[in-house]
Amino acid sequence: MNRIWVVGMGPGSEEQMTLQAREALADCDVIVGYTVYVELLKKLWPDKEYRTTPMRQEAERCRMAFEEAKDGRKVAMVCSGDAGVYGMAGLMLELAKEYPDCSLEIVPGVTAALAGGALLGAPLGHDFAVISLSDLLTPWEKIEKRLRLAAQADLSICIYNPSSRKRAGYLKRACDILLESIEEERVCGLAVMIGREGEYSEVLTLRELRERQADMFTTVFIGNSQTRKIGGRMVAPRGYRI
Amino acid sequence: MNRIWVVGMGPGSEEQMTLQAREALADCDVIVGYTVYVELLKKLWPDKEYRTTPMRQEAERCRMAFEEAKDGRKVAMVCSGDAGVYGMAGLMLELAKEYPDCSLEIVPGVTAALAGGALLGAPLGHDFAVISLSDLLTPWEKIEKRLRLAAQADLSICIYNPSSRKRAGYLKRACDILLESIEEERVCGLAVMIGREGEYSEVLTLRELRERQADMFTTVFIGNSQTRKIGGRMVAPRGYRI
Repeated sequence: MNRIWVVGMGPGSEEQMTLQAREALADCDVIVGYTVYVELLKKLWPDKEYRTTPMRQEAERCRMAFEEAKDGRKVAMVCSGDAGVYGMAGLMLELAKEYPDCSLEIVPGVTAALAGGALLGAPLGHDFAVISLSDLLTPWEKIEKRLRLAAQADLSICIYNPSSRKRAGYLKRACDILLESIEEERVCGLAVMIGREGEYSEVLTLRELRERQADMFTTVFIGNSQTRKIGGRMVAPRGYRI
Repeated sequence: MNRIWVVGMGPGSEEQMTLQAREALADCDVIVGYTVYVELLKKLWPDKEYRTTPMRQEAERCRMAFEEAKDGRKVAMVCSGDAGVYGMAGLMLELAKEYPDCSLEIVPGVTAALAGGALLGAPLGHDFAVISLSDLLTPWEKIEKRLRLAAQADLSICIYNPSSRKRAGYLKRACDILLESIEEERVCGLAVMIGREGEYSEVLTLRELRERQADMFTTVFIGNSQTRKIGGRMVAPRGYRI
């Protein structure tokens, strides 16, 4: 059996990788991934062989990994954050039936909700939802419905892919949906370039968030009704009596 | 300033810790935590000093950490999984104002949703909610409402604390709520003792899940309408065309 590791590399820095992830990346012959993340890894392992595809060529990227493994090489398919959460693990498992001589090992990692949460404080200390605003593969109506119901459920919400060049107004549209049931002063947060140069976080209100430009390196946090700003940080309390 | 690290140690095994978490635990003088998790760490660092409190004494545990740090010692407050997700980071931040000479650093970790997800396949490959069934600090009506709305939103759902001795029927009650809007054949999953001896996972239907006894070392996954069982694993596809 040719083994392929599908590795969640965490937000970007080596120190936020798990030992298992670092070991898989250090041991493999070939690292396959999206161009931006592969650039981060080249600094750590300059002598590895790298194979990349740009965004929107995910299936090609996965097939590339299987083809390399078929040739008997140790392959790591790398994902930023976790291997599963909006990562390649699902697509790799879907394609695996075409490559019966390959087996997959999924290596989890620290996704942006957790790393960005730590930067901001503890915005996900109680029940929460993770919702992506990317409508490349999901109808916008479905995204709207999820935002609306998550807000009604009083879940904290972590928003991935809040914006991109082609989707400049999406975060504002999302905030308008949330404002149907959430007050303007709700505590929210932003985490930008987590674990990378230029790392930045900010606690702000939902009204302020609505006016912000986000990019694809931003993760957004919407508080639940109990979320507070404490000592400059964002905290969703679990409810312990103190 | 006396620094305290609030460390997400991951599910249990050393290899699923981040480098940053391992470093914080290796460097500190005292490790404070819940008895069960501290036992796992004693195997790795038998010579550390450990301070523990049982469950339901979380505030005391946090004060213990601050008091140790006030005495000038390097302290790590350890949480299983992530530091924030149902962890101690929130409570530590709430208490921090009483200890102005201490500063907190939050170290994120691989929470059970991610580690259990990797074990099962990719059950959280698209939007999802994380909901705890523990009603120690949250009214059961609120938990029911969150389950109901998350199911209506077609989010995958990861359930923490599905059961305990005192809450033996809670998972069944949760399944009955989900069955109001989800079909009996919906693909679900269980991950037990993640990263520890006796690790086990299983893909099953919502109908089958309803009949299961879960314990506090079980994490439960409910598929969304697109989730499928592929090669024995649980996959929530992101929607890529293949």
